[in-house]
Amino acid sequence: MDFRKQFFVGPGEKLKLAGIDPAHTGGHASSEEALPEIQKNVARMAELQALLYADGNQSLLVVLQALDAAGKDGVVRHLFSGMNPQGTRVYGFKQPSAEEAAHDFLWRAHQRTPARGEVAVFNRSHYEDVLVVRVHQLVPKAVWSKRYALINDFEKMLAENGTRILKFFLHISPEEQLLRFKQRLDDPARNWKISEGDYSEREFWSDYVGAYEEAMSKTSSKDAPWYVIPANHKWFRNLAISQIIVDTMEDMGLKLPPTRVDLQEIAVKYHAAEAAQEQRAGKTPKPPGKK
Amino acid sequence: MDFRKQFFVGPGEKLKLAGIDPAHTGGHASSEEALPEIQKNVARMAELQALLYADGNQSLLVVLQALDAAGKDGVVRHLFSGMNPQGTRVYGFKQPSAEEAAHDFLWRAHQRTPARGEVAVFNRSHYEDVLVVRVHQLVPKAVWSKRYALINDFEKMLAENGTRILKFFLHISPEEQLLRFKQRLDDPARNWKISEGDYSEREFWSDYVGAYEEAMSKTSSKDAPWYVIPANHKWFRNLAISQIIVDTMEDMGLKLPPTRVDLQEIAVKYHAAEAAQEQRAGKTPKPPGKK
Repeated sequence: MDFRKQFFVGPGEKLKLAGIDPAHTGGHASSEEALPEIQKNVARMAELQALLYADGNQSLLVVLQALDAAGKDGVVRHLFSGMNPQGTRVYGFKQPSAEEAAHDFLWRAHQRTPARGEVAVFNRSHYEDVLVVRVHQLVPKAVWSKRYALINDFEKMLAENGTRILKFFLHISPEEQLLRFKQRLDDPARNWKISEGDYSEREFWSDYVGAYEEAMSKTSSKDAPWYVIPANHKWFRNLAISQIIVDTMEDMGLKLPPTRVDLQEIAVKYHAAEAAQEQRAGKTPKPPGKK
Repeated sequence: MDFRKQFFVGPGEKLKLAGIDPAHTGGHASSEEALPEIQKNVARMAELQALLYADGNQSLLVVLQALDAAGKDGVVRHLFSGMNPQGTRVYGFKQPSAEEAAHDFLWRAHQRTPARGEVAVFNRSHYEDVLVVRVHQLVPKAVWSKRYALINDFEKMLAENGTRILKFFLHISPEEQLLRFKQRLDDPARNWKISEGDYSEREFWSDYVGAYEEAMSKTSSKDAPWYVIPANHKWFRNLAISQIIVDTMEDMGLKLPPTRVDLQEIAVKYHAAEAAQEQRAGKTPKPPGKK
């Protein structure tokens, strides 16, 4: 199954999240069955990231959006820990600082887009400015409703400059969220992560669903696709996202830079000169250069 | 053996790198023997990083310095790939941009120091301003010679604000470097990483040794220690550095934030309210909130 086809949000489509089963697992029976595939994908992601870095002409931007406890942090930990941290940056977008809030809403996102050769992961993103901002009416509708077009222009510019963009919405049910809150609360190592706000925010669930449906429908495109990932099962979420990332990076036409044949001659010269120097100096090799 | 004692550069000591064997392996016979210890350390580093993040009061800054091919990138890949990339940032310091060069030499380093809860790894660092800058006389001696004291003041300020600093010099022999250049040149996947400059820079080997000896001697302290790590054997280098990081982080007194007992009551209330709502709605659970 091509997950890129299966979970793609069609541009302008009348998206209804209620029609997508968050507990979907494809043909996979269990976590145990999927694990080897996930591990293969994670290993391949690390290889492709090294190749992206070596190639140096393109970049990858992964956007993770979801309601609380849907697994954004889990995706980062399970799928991106294997990548070389020198070429991979993960940014958690929190409430804007005073300086960030004093700029346009894309300003802080733009500062964190990946350089050529890099992977950037946005854990939350500029999409919060048409999600939480809309649900809690932090700006008037006249302002947030214009942002879909602004986001499209921004992402188009990134894409034209060599950035591949993948946007994932982690789709869980409200029951699954409540269950995960409870598990966190009962786990001394994660208890501190939870706040009363996590619970009270549940009252806005259907508002968030509406905001997500409109945002994804209006900003999904071939160059900056949205995927709705069934995420009640963490292992299926990891399988689908890793597979989409691998398939996308395989399509990027990444290549190693040309072999430096011109250096072979230079290297031979240096190696010969230093070998001669060693011989003159007797058995103990000496550091080269001025003494 | 406590590597932190064994490889520590004493503040103000008359350091002679020629007296330290780059092929040292401690009592370890082989890579195979060391591997389980390295793996244990890397796993523990990931746990401690998660704890550092949860604790949220301190940070860790790791500085990696060395001549070319001594293994800085290898340390990043082998030891830091396991950490959660959301709390770990690796910065490769290259030739300064025009904007960076127009500021004081600590400006760009300061922008990349770790926030509370974070780990930052500097692959090269502000130390290049007393190393390559000195060797190639990019500024007069009157300028670079004052920088040791400026660096000490800067790092002291970081330490007083909760940043643990660990500085590693990866110590290889010139013969080992030449061997690694040759291996890179013969490997199609890494051939592109090498340039003629890598070879010609070898003529300045002894100048670099002198610059490193003075820099480490003048900027090593209890709060910002330098360690000279024998690095001809990659596995011993990984063992020693990972052990020093683990030992240091174990000493930081990291703690989980207090358990939110106050939330248990709130959670019970929410769970009960939603269970009642589900019962009223019949068998199919409904999303909570406004409809």
